[in-house]
Amino acid sequence: MSVKSIICSESKEIAGYSFDEYREIVKEFHGSEAPGLLIGGFMVALALQNLEEGGLYDAISETRTCLPDAIQLLTPCTIGNGWLKVVPFGRYALTLYDKTDASHPGVRVYVDAAKLKAWPEIYAWFFKLKTKGQEGQKNLTEHIRQAGTSILSISRVSVNDQFAKKLHKGKIDVCQQCGEAYPAADGKSCLACQGNIVYS
Amino acid sequence: MSVKSIICSESKEIAGYSFDEYREIVKEFHGSEAPGLLIGGFMVALALQNLEEGGLYDAISETRTCLPDAIQLLTPCTIGNGWLKVVPFGRYALTLYDKTDASHPGVRVYVDAAKLKAWPEIYAWFFKLKTKGQEGQKNLTEHIRQAGTSILSISRVSVNDQFAKKLHKGKIDVCQQCGEAYPAADGKSCLACQGNIVYS
Repeated sequence: MSVKSIICSESKEIAGYSFDEYREIVKEFHGSEAPGLLIGGFMVALALQNLEEGGLYDAISETRTCLPDAIQLLTPCTIGNGWLKVVPFGRYALTLYDKTDASHPGVRVYVDAAKLKAWPEIYAWFFKLKTKGQEGQKNLTEHIRQAGTSILSISRVSVNDQFAKKLHKGKIDVCQQCGEAYPAADGKSCLACQGNIVYS
Repeated sequence: MSVKSIICSESKEIAGYSFDEYREIVKEFHGSEAPGLLIGGFMVALALQNLEEGGLYDAISETRTCLPDAIQLLTPCTIGNGWLKVVPFGRYALTLYDKTDASHPGVRVYVDAAKLKAWPEIYAWFFKLKTKGQEGQKNLTEHIRQAGTSILSISRVSVNDQFAKKLHKGKIDVCQQCGEAYPAADGKSCLACQGNIVYS
């Protein structure tokens, strides 16, 4: 899958959906029309336009917040099928890259802080300069719709082979401590029994 | 939200869907009828039956594989809205717990290795004793349908307050190295610039 010349589309279409159709899908899955997820739709759309059609790709979200849901809704990549990985870098950016060869250039799309200055309402929300009550959700949604992909930038990236490598669980054993199945490669007991950080 | 007496349901209903309806939803979102995701449907259904209706809950998946998608499809909890956390313990287990007070008992549902012995086909798949070609997907799906919740166990758990705590990003700054927005609490530059493990 090769990357075409970079397109900086100003299309208001989101991967085949109108903006309003996409808003409905977002509400159904995510529970609310989170502004980040609306911007995320344009991000995924822009990335897809810059990949060969019909190719198979994996995805990276560089933030845990909102963006993973845009990727899961608009691409075949989900957390559970392993095609989407979340790296908690805290940057509002995503990458789509060739599933069969990570060293082929993929595309990375990010919210461009400089371009955002042309949209003060979105800027104020993105940099958390207003309290939730002050935000004016309706206006913000309208600004996001109008801004479309104009607040985004895109670049070509190569994903590290080591990072892209598919993890396989290998042999499955029964943990001697908890009695549940776990990947034997994790050690003599499962990782939860080795260091439980979840349950009290 | 209190936990009712534990129900070990043998219902074949999956959170309001028939098994076949759920299979269709799974295919659409996940790309295939992964056996783990079919079992995951019964796991979510059993957990939901053991929580008060109308309560708000957060979710934990103790594995990255398949199960997070069952949770995302059948509950309001997604990766992007932060209501679902994945802890890579490698155990096929999920927990749903009170969003407003993690110390209230939540419910944890897991595939019970001992109960699985009554279902040799599922056992062989779960412990990876057969190669992919030998599995016989159709038979496996039928066995999973018939087994329903009978291969699962459920227990009450309390989730560690520290783990349950909602993370807030705090002040957002522009990274001096890459020029992108990041949570200022991460340090003088963003975590990607501090240690890029993703791109080559």
